[in-house]
Amino acid sequence: MDLVLERHLKRAAAATVLVAVALARSASAQVDLLRSWNDGAAKKAIVDFVHSTTTQGSTSFLAPADRIATFDQDGTLWVEHPVYTQVIYCLDRVPTLVKEKPELANVEPFKTVLSGKRAAIAKLSMKDLEKILAATLTGMSTDRFQVDVKRWIDTATDSRWHRRYTELTYAPMLELMKYLRSNGYKTYIVTGGGQDFVRVYSEETYGIPPEQVVGTAEGVKFGYDKEGRPMLTKEPKLLLNDDNAGKPEGIHLMIGRRPSAAFGNSDGDRQMIEYTKAGNGTRLAMLVLHDDAQREYAYGPANGLPDTKVGTFSQRLFDEARKDGWVIISMKNDWNRIFSSEEVAKKEKR
Amino acid sequence: MDLVLERHLKRAAAATVLVAVALARSASAQVDLLRSWNDGAAKKAIVDFVHSTTTQGSTSFLAPADRIATFDQDGTLWVEHPVYTQVIYCLDRVPTLVKEKPELANVEPFKTVLSGKRAAIAKLSMKDLEKILAATLTGMSTDRFQVDVKRWIDTATDSRWHRRYTELTYAPMLELMKYLRSNGYKTYIVTGGGQDFVRVYSEETYGIPPEQVVGTAEGVKFGYDKEGRPMLTKEPKLLLNDDNAGKPEGIHLMIGRRPSAAFGNSDGDRQMIEYTKAGNGTRLAMLVLHDDAQREYAYGPANGLPDTKVGTFSQRLFDEARKDGWVIISMKNDWNRIFSSEEVAKKEKR
Repeated sequence: MDLVLERHLKRAAAATVLVAVALARSASAQVDLLRSWNDGAAKKAIVDFVHSTTTQGSTSFLAPADRIATFDQDGTLWVEHPVYTQVIYCLDRVPTLVKEKPELANVEPFKTVLSGKRAAIAKLSMKDLEKILAATLTGMSTDRFQVDVKRWIDTATDSRWHRRYTELTYAPMLELMKYLRSNGYKTYIVTGGGQDFVRVYSEETYGIPPEQVVGTAEGVKFGYDKEGRPMLTKEPKLLLNDDNAGKPEGIHLMIGRRPSAAFGNSDGDRQMIEYTKAGNGTRLAMLVLHDDAQREYAYGPANGLPDTKVGTFSQRLFDEARKDGWVIISMKNDWNRIFSSEEVAKKEKR
Repeated sequence: MDLVLERHLKRAAAATVLVAVALARSASAQVDLLRSWNDGAAKKAIVDFVHSTTTQGSTSFLAPADRIATFDQDGTLWVEHPVYTQVIYCLDRVPTLVKEKPELANVEPFKTVLSGKRAAIAKLSMKDLEKILAATLTGMSTDRFQVDVKRWIDTATDSRWHRRYTELTYAPMLELMKYLRSNGYKTYIVTGGGQDFVRVYSEETYGIPPEQVVGTAEGVKFGYDKEGRPMLTKEPKLLLNDDNAGKPEGIHLMIGRRPSAAFGNSDGDRQMIEYTKAGNGTRLAMLVLHDDAQREYAYGPANGLPDTKVGTFSQRLFDEARKDGWVIISMKNDWNRIFSSEEVAKKEKR
């Protein structure tokens, strides 16, 4: 008898999918889910891919369970220049850290950060930065860390647009994620950034729940607090370096399936995209090229753009993309709007 | 405008949930989803928990996103005696391994396994077993491993019931997982067994997709095969030992949320349950006690049952469960049917 109920439930679920698909399609005449995208090769690649993988009977059809799409975060979903948002968080945490551990006030690199001298801070070595990251991202309970990040992300603003970082997410990419989800795709973030960090705001910002965020992860240690309550402490022990080859490795660990679509913007996303494209059937691979100095930033060095150490898009990556049919998204030409917050601004004016 | 569409989609989704819930409730009068459970404290604890956490307005109400339930596998979802199924897989792989690497034929412990002498195999030390596990679970591509495990799990049978291992899953636990899912819970396996191993059959056997299996995990290494195609190779490098304290640590890594309900059967599940119970609000913790030598096995040593090294349920765990309100499931008294395959047998007879 419970088989009957299961069938009912399955039918109800199938009915919803049909309703959702019907709504999406009937609406597509009036509403363009991808309205921040200009017509062109990039937008066409997305629409064609989704159409061919979700049309019953198509040779490229994918069962809903196999519809996995992975997105890099920094430079793909939100601004990464002049410096990664998480690094700013870590620098901002230093005064609180020193309040708790006063002995650090005269120890480098904390002393330099406390001085507030931007030129000196910008010159900190990678080793110094790693010390700051370890001191501000580990050593506390996972609960405490979540509270700290939440408070910061809700209030801190960037220095160019004076907006919260979560307002500097790219509207076209948010639309793309929604469009994929409305077509049965499960969207994942696969980021070189901290898994615990991104999970704090991913649901509210991207509609992606914590369990669908794969990122660089330190180990946590189970133990008990003074009152004997179980707790997890963040340890300075790298478990997954989710960048470059670490991205497909992290995808295997955390998802266990090969994505059908992958989106990135830098050399750190190369192996994730190669792994995605190496699967059978139709696959979509796209790279955001930051070629819009006016509305955002311009960096490569691919295609003659200025070189950078933050989110490097090399000529080698550009050539591999061209050769293997990965689609390059030109921020300048393919996006008629950059930030999710622009929409809000326009609406407020009406 | 796409906000209008999103609202529509959300309403459609909400409508389905209502339809599903209504169906589940209207059906509950006639159909008992938990029909392999005898009436008693264990069944009541499940029904009460689900009712209180899914009833709007209840002080224990949980938003669907927070409905996370974690299940140990060995001894909780399927038989673990006399030896873990995955260990049998590894022993069964040895002849193939030696065919590929003939130099192992005269090397211990492979020589003993090849001899087929059960008494000698049973006496292998933990160190010997680890050598066999490493040799049969790592060194190959992830794709190859999946094919090998799939072929084995589809054909190998156990020596007592002569049934495939996936037929020796516990019917009451499968019902419980379905019951939770039909009430909006996301079900996860959190096992000391190999993550890659369990993921091969978890969807078909338990209705749990690979990305919802957390298990002991070795690292994988990204690289390219001779034809230059990207591939992942399983490495003998332990990343997550998903047992004891490793269970809550693995839950944090892979899910990033604290479960609301957790199910286990041995000392290896203690920390997962403590972590689950330490959260706010109503939580459900249950332990399967193997006290049915006739229909399955009897082991503890809790409650005067025979001692064992496979799936130990210590008196200490038993006492902690009693003290902290974890519910103990007696296989003998709480389950009117043990195996999922019994149902099939009955139906075939009709």
